Parts: sequence; structure tokens; C-alpha cells
Amino acid sequence: MEEIKRTEIASLGEFGLIERLTGHIQLKNTSTLKGVGDDSAVLDYQGKQTLITTDLLLEGVHFDLTYVPLKHLGYKSAVVNFSDIYAMNGTPRQITVSLGVSKRFSVENLEELYAGIQLACDIYGVDLVGGDTSASMTGLTISITCIGEGEPGKVVYRNGAKENDLICVSGDLGAAYMGLQLLEREKRVFAGETEFKPAFEGHEYLLERQLKPEARKDIVAELDKAGIVPTAMMDISDGLSSELLHICSQSHVGCRIYEDRIPIDYQTAAMAEEFNMNLVTAALNGGEDYELLFTVPLEKHDIVAAIPGVRVIGHITKPELGCCMITRDDTEITLRAQGWNSLAEE
Amino acid sequence: MEEIKRTEIASLGEFGLIERLTGHIQLKNTSTLKGVGDDSAVLDYQGKQTLITTDLLLEGVHFDLTYVPLKHLGYKSAVVNFSDIYAMNGTPRQITVSLGVSKRFSVENLEELYAGIQLACDIYGVDLVGGDTSASMTGLTISITCIGEGEPGKVVYRNGAKENDLICVSGDLGAAYMGLQLLEREKRVFAGETEFKPAFEGHEYLLERQLKPEARKDIVAELDKAGIVPTAMMDISDGLSSELLHICSQSHVGCRIYEDRIPIDYQTAAMAEEFNMNLVTAALNGGEDYELLFTVPLEKHDIVAAIPGVRVIGHITKPELGCCMITRDDTEITLRAQGWNSLAEE
Repeated sequence: MEEIKRTEIASLGEFGLIERLTGHIQLKNTSTLKGVGDDSAVLDYQGKQTLITTDLLLEGVHFDLTYVPLKHLGYKSAVVNFSDIYAMNGTPRQITVSLGVSKRFSVENLEELYAGIQLACDIYGVDLVGGDTSASMTGLTISITCIGEGEPGKVVYRNGAKENDLICVSGDLGAAYMGLQLLEREKRVFAGETEFKPAFEGHEYLLERQLKPEARKDIVAELDKAGIVPTAMMDISDGLSSELLHICSQSHVGCRIYEDRIPIDYQTAAMAEEFNMNLVTAALNGGEDYELLFTVPLEKHDIVAAIPGVRVIGHITKPELGCCMITRDDTEITLRAQGWNSLAEE
Repeated sequence: MEEIKRTEIASLGEFGLIERLTGHIQLKNTSTLKGVGDDSAVLDYQGKQTLITTDLLLEGVHFDLTYVPLKHLGYKSAVVNFSDIYAMNGTPRQITVSLGVSKRFSVENLEELYAGIQLACDIYGVDLVGGDTSASMTGLTISITCIGEGEPGKVVYRNGAKENDLICVSGDLGAAYMGLQLLEREKRVFAGETEFKPAFEGHEYLLERQLKPEARKDIVAELDKAGIVPTAMMDISDGLSSELLHICSQSHVGCRIYEDRIPIDYQTAAMAEEFNMNLVTAALNGGEDYELLFTVPLEKHDIVAAIPGVRVIGHITKPELGCCMITRDDTEITLRAQGWNSLAEE
């Protein structure tokens, strides 16, 4: 192994560490009046609505540092929060980052994590404006809160889907889940070896979807350009089934989606076959896709279908009809939330 | 012990748990357009500035459940965030609460924690608008982000202190620290016993300051009523010395404070004597007072000195004079940040 400089966090202390990690930050948004360095950040949105979302990531539950590089972890931790703001048809503007770190981590480790967060902030035009850094007895804890802005009247909730609306998804589904399966398998294969260098050829897309997901800023921009405000929208973090059931229950409607319309990448299909897993189950219930699920009025069909990367997969029905998928052999099966749920019994 | 109902968190699942904990929440602020239940909360501040602060609390580092009741922990977790917003001369309006919980905790435990958070929200007029709840491998993690509003032009930063300004503190200092020492001593005395019932008579104030601190909403209101906008302000969470050094370094000034002006409660003094500890050290460096430290122009002396619970403890100087305390025997000692710092070497 190459020699890596290791600075103990204790040698800098809390304020020294914060300065080292955040001292060079340049603010990008005019709405950010004051970032890191006071009791709170100060923002000014002038006539916009403020959007707030937060995520807590715990080592051993949400990520495994055996195969997740810290820079990727930082990038993903930020992006999953941006995704929640886009899912409201908003624009992420600021984040706060709180870290709990055990002695196992060096200053250089945290700089890598921050480099990933900062890269995500640069790409998505977001300012890092505050946080809290403290010791932890056990591993790494990351808590990120994202603040965004929305245009009054254009913020999209989960509860606005109407009968006959079209159900749309962006990108493709199930790839992040298959990427996770692949990483877990390779971890078992290499268990006990200090050098973790598995062969991932041919599966790059799956790994990228798991390790470095993107938020669909582009889709939100395309919808805006096309003059479409979705009637309901969510990001797909727990799986298509689970999210669609949220939209339907909050909107008091039912839905029909079609198995043959669900977008799935070739690598996802190949991997599912290799693992002898049901492909549609992976696409319906595999989490962490961070694609957008949204509904639009029926008359927008031609416009929405023309947006690259958007697929119409079904439509909204009366609530009495329940939430179902029509399979390739024309059977109706009821959708269930079997999404990833860290609090459920195993 | 009385029989307590224990519902396993896994029996509810993530969404069931969120519904159980947050389903009854009534929103209080007109700025809260949408609370729990979507990808993000939606707020509307109409002409105000938005303030954001966040705190991460980890079991074994920031709290010890041996002697901290969950309801108190919830209350304190919320209040310390409100305190940061008041320290900007703002008003807390919303919080998000993220929890990481191990299997050791039941639904009833989390309801107690939430009851404390909700009580704090009710007393301070704050809406709980979102969060994230997930499993943890190890103990309890609480991450709270507070959003507040500030009047443009009246938000107070740390960097505005000017030469000759008066240095003021609210309440009294060192009591929360002495309360912690007392709790730690009683924990050692009762180590190994299952019933933890130490005798705390005569020390109630110290325990209350440690276990159930309040944010100085009243002082911010009094200052406003008196027409005073402080030139700089912070809340005292790491100790007076540490916070005063932050204000002086960010404002590029020095300071003189007077030992005999530092407000200390009788119980704090008695406890310090019992522990054979230096009382002034406890007042200067003991953390978690959550009092306000602020500076005002010299000409406001009579007005600020007339506010109940506010003490003028010194004044701001040219930067060349450094940051010092004048002791009772007229010696100048340099202030150092020896405040509580979970990341420092022991």
C-alpha cells in the first residue's frame, strides 16, 4: 500500500477541523447570506418558498466502508438530499452537514468525505452552510439537511394525483439494487483478504448507480421547459412499488402500471439472471434508484413521452380499483411495499 | 418496577413508526405550508430571512441514558437548537428530527423522546416538519435541524462587536456543568445497582440546568422591547471563555471582563466547594449554559442594565489588548478556550 498521511482529528480539535474542512468554501447562491461560522446560517429567498429535507446515514446500516470509498459516500449523501428537493419540483440551494466520527478516522479521511460532498455541491450549485462535528463511540454518522427553494404554485406534493393522470418514471430501475448485490457478493468472496480488488468488468453501470447516483435535475428542467407541472411527484428511494403506494394513498386514488413498460437496463437484467433473481421484483422493490416518479394530466401524453429518459408506465384510477401491476401475461397483481426498510423484522 | 408496555419498533415498520410519532402533530406557524409526509417540508417566510442550525447528539458522547430521562433528552435536544436561532436574534419556527435507534429501544421509548421534543415545540411555538428514522447498530443518535426567521437588518452575527461595546450575559453560568458533575458522581456511587435513586436534595437547580435547559427567548424579546439590536451575539454552549474568544476573533477586537461581575448561582458555588473545584473555572469553561452572550453600544448601558436577568460583565477593547479577565485581586489573566470539546485529546 502507498503511504498515506494520517493526521489525528484530536490534533486539530473541533474548530480546527471545521476550519480545515470548510474554510475554503466559496458561496455560490445569492440566497446564501451567511454560511459556516455562526450560530446559524442566514438565507434570503425573496418571494420563494423554502423546502427542507433531511437524511441520517449510519455506518453498518446505510453504508459499508469495506467497498464504499469515502469520496463516493460524501457525494451520494449530498445527492440523495438534492433528489428530495427536485422531487418537490424545487431547486436545492444549501446543505448543512453533521458528522459523528470515531477515532478510526483521520483528518484526511474526512477531507475525502468532504471532497465528495463538495463535488456534489459544485455540480448541483449548492452551498454548504453549516453543520456540527463531534466524536462518536462507534463508526461514522452523517446527517445532512438540504434547503431548497420552490416557486409558489409550482411546488409538487405527493397528494395531487388525479384519476386518468399518466404515471411516469425517469431513467431505469433496479440497477442500484443489483449493484449492491454485486458488491455484497464480492465482499463475501474477498472476506479476510486485506486487498479488496474484485473484478467488476461489464457491471460498471450497476456500480455507478449504487455508488455514485445522480439526482434528476435534468428531468425537472425538461418538465419546466415543456411547461409541465406534475400533479404529484416523488423520488424513488425505497422502490417503485413503495413510492407509488405513497402517492396513491396520499392522493386517494388507485393505479395500474404495466410490467412491460417498466424501464430496466440491460446490465440489470443480466445481473438478475446471474443471481437467479426475479428481475421485475428488483425493479419494483430495489431501492436507491433516485429516479423521479410523477403523474401528469392525460392530455400531456405526447409532450411528456417526447422527453428523453421519461417513460409512461401506467395511469391513475379510481381508488376502488386498488394499486396493481398488469404482467406480461395480462394478470393483475396487487402492488405491495416490499421496499428496503431498515426498521422491519428480518 | 411497574410494568411498562413495550412495542417493538420492528412491529410498526418505518412508516408506521413515523405515523405513530408524528401523526397527531398540529402545525402552529403560518410559515409552515407543509410538514411531515412529503419529500421535503415547505415553508414560506414572506420578506424574512431564513436561519438554519443543526445539532448531532450521540449516545455515550453527548448524553448518558443512565441518568437522563428520554423526555428530558428530547426537550433539551430541541431547545439547544432553538437557542442557536435566538442567538441570531431570530425566532425558531420549524424543526426536523432524525433518529437512529437500536433494538434496545421500544416504540414507547421513542414516544417519550418525542413527547419531550413536542413539549419544547409547544412552549416555543415551533412546528416539527420532518425527519428521518432508521435503525442503528449502536445506541441512540439524534440529529435536529432548526429553521427560523429573522428580520432583515436585525439578524445578529458574531462579527459585529466594536471597541467600547459592553459585554453582557443573561442568567448565570456554570450551573449546568456542576449538575453534570453531580450526576456523574451519583452514577459512580450507584454503579451496578439497578435502581438509580440518588439523593439530589438542595441541588435541584443544578440538575434542572443540566437536564432541562431553556433557551433565552425572553431575553431576545426584552432586548427587542428595549429597542436594542446587539452588535454581536452567541449562545453559551461551550463555556463563556470559548464563546467570547469566538466573538473577539470574528470581530477583530479584544476584551476585558471582570471576575466579580460573572453571574453565578448560590447552588453552583456550594457544589464547587463540595467538589473542591475552582468556581470561576466552572463558570468560564463549563458548557451547556445556553445563556446569551452579547455586546451592545456603550450608550445603551442604562437600558441594558435595567433588563432583569442581564449582567454587564466587561467591555470590548482594541485587538492589541487581547482577551483578558480581571480577577478580584486585580490581576489580568488571558482567556483561553478550555471549553468542552469532544474531539480534543484527553
